[in-house]
Amino acid sequence: MTLILALDFGGTKLAAAIANLGSQRWLRYERRLSPTNANASSDLEMMRSLIHSLLQEGKPAAIGVSFGGPVDATTGTVRLSHHVSGWENIPLKDLLEAEFGVFVSVDNDANVAALGEHRFGAGQGYDSLFYITVSTGVGGGWILNNQPWRGAGGMAGEIGHIIVDPSGPICLCGKRGCVERLASGVYMARDVREALLSEPQRWGEKVRELVGGNLELVTGKVVSEAAALGDVCAEEILYRGAWGLGVGIGNVANLMNPQRFVLGGSVTKAGERWWEMVKKTARKTALPEVDLEIVPAALGDDAPLWGAMALAQEALQ
Amino acid sequence: MTLILALDFGGTKLAAAIANLGSQRWLRYERRLSPTNANASSDLEMMRSLIHSLLQEGKPAAIGVSFGGPVDATTGTVRLSHHVSGWENIPLKDLLEAEFGVFVSVDNDANVAALGEHRFGAGQGYDSLFYITVSTGVGGGWILNNQPWRGAGGMAGEIGHIIVDPSGPICLCGKRGCVERLASGVYMARDVREALLSEPQRWGEKVRELVGGNLELVTGKVVSEAAALGDVCAEEILYRGAWGLGVGIGNVANLMNPQRFVLGGSVTKAGERWWEMVKKTARKTALPEVDLEIVPAALGDDAPLWGAMALAQEALQ
Repeated sequence: MTLILALDFGGTKLAAAIANLGSQRWLRYERRLSPTNANASSDLEMMRSLIHSLLQEGKPAAIGVSFGGPVDATTGTVRLSHHVSGWENIPLKDLLEAEFGVFVSVDNDANVAALGEHRFGAGQGYDSLFYITVSTGVGGGWILNNQPWRGAGGMAGEIGHIIVDPSGPICLCGKRGCVERLASGVYMARDVREALLSEPQRWGEKVRELVGGNLELVTGKVVSEAAALGDVCAEEILYRGAWGLGVGIGNVANLMNPQRFVLGGSVTKAGERWWEMVKKTARKTALPEVDLEIVPAALGDDAPLWGAMALAQEALQ
Repeated sequence: MTLILALDFGGTKLAAAIANLGSQRWLRYERRLSPTNANASSDLEMMRSLIHSLLQEGKPAAIGVSFGGPVDATTGTVRLSHHVSGWENIPLKDLLEAEFGVFVSVDNDANVAALGEHRFGAGQGYDSLFYITVSTGVGGGWILNNQPWRGAGGMAGEIGHIIVDPSGPICLCGKRGCVERLASGVYMARDVREALLSEPQRWGEKVRELVGGNLELVTGKVVSEAAALGDVCAEEILYRGAWGLGVGIGNVANLMNPQRFVLGGSVTKAGERWWEMVKKTARKTALPEVDLEIVPAALGDDAPLWGAMALAQEALQ
């Protein structure tokens, strides 16, 4: 059989898997957390050991790679990682090709996850889709005419940094009211924390209970959980985020009219009301003539790994 | 020689032209204004007479058609016209094919103008572009991988109805702060008119001079002219429109990262300061890593006719 090797450099975790060409199941699969003091060299070293334990005596026919950060997909060069130091301008494709002697294809995680959902998940059978990950940050990847669309400079898909409310709060990117600023887990946690610090008497009992009074421990997940328990502050910020994402999706629908939107990432586990708010707002924002279908991702955290397998498979065809 | 016939049903005007296959010049060209009481039948009748006067004894090998309104490009059926009655569900492709016995291709004016600019105008040599017309309304058309992208239901390109300011004025589409609501000629004229009526003493001397005191005569063009003369009210509304369009373009750049934006339509003749505001705002809205090039359309009002020629040419290849 022809073996395919799929790699996922995920920032906080590393994963690798092998499968037979054409198969929809992994033969073997490994996933490890990156240490907090990881750098590019230690990531590469850990990935090497995962690969060798997976491959044993075998040799892959091609390697697909998902990288959690900006990548020049035409050359397979990593531009940088926002999570791990030392990844500036690393020719990941060249390094792996020299080491393993086979074709390697590298792209960023949002594009690769979109491909994974398209070939093996919630986008199977759809010609066009926009995959959105709503997690620590907010990013997206396109499939148009059954192929990835990366943009002229490889920067397409940045729904996290489209403006939906020019009078909204300021984002790290310098703009106000970006989708990521409103809807990402990290920013929602920060907004809840600041609201509770500034008005300690008014609200947030459930949030305070969940973190035992230590507001430093508020995360996106805590915000979702507190909102589900009826915490007014958490509800306000969670549903403002869902509104911002919904406006973004409706805008994208008017602009590109894809067949499907596929939503993944930790924030999408916030519950039924979050989904309703996203869908309702997107429907109101899209023109009545624009069909709109929004569904949850099917592959969860493994979407990049499946997409990496698709990247490698396509190189062999 | 092989003749190509190009038709443009523009709402307020009709145009037709013929060219030899592969040529970049018209052999003959006709353009007429539609009467104010026009309907689909009278438009078709007038177009027939244009065609017969152009063709004389010749016969085209294919016909390309631009229509100013929503079209199902896969069947060549006009859904409706916002300007002329009687166009609901007219099978324009079938009608013309039955009459002329050759292949006919029909699409909406924004998509066709995008194709025209790509093949013969400001988009020549670019793999991807977004064409935006800023006129009575605001619309757009995509070229991706050198081909039109129409969206799953033929609705892609509606930059006019993406929200850029959710606390902005209400658009006919029901939403607040759409690009069209802020940047189109008709809405800017209306906003200037209302501002001058509500605060007659405060401002608008230049606008009032240009229309001889009759505010009913304020148009988008008058707003541009008054702004150029330093009218404060006209400036405020014109540059708010340019800001809204700039945010829209920056959002689109982050989302799709096309090589070029090509802007046409009457409002783009508003002058250097309007262009500067559009470009500056788009640049601030796009991420620093996203390259952004915004240029004026090259073909003016003839872009749909040139695009119609490209549609017909491609049917023959």
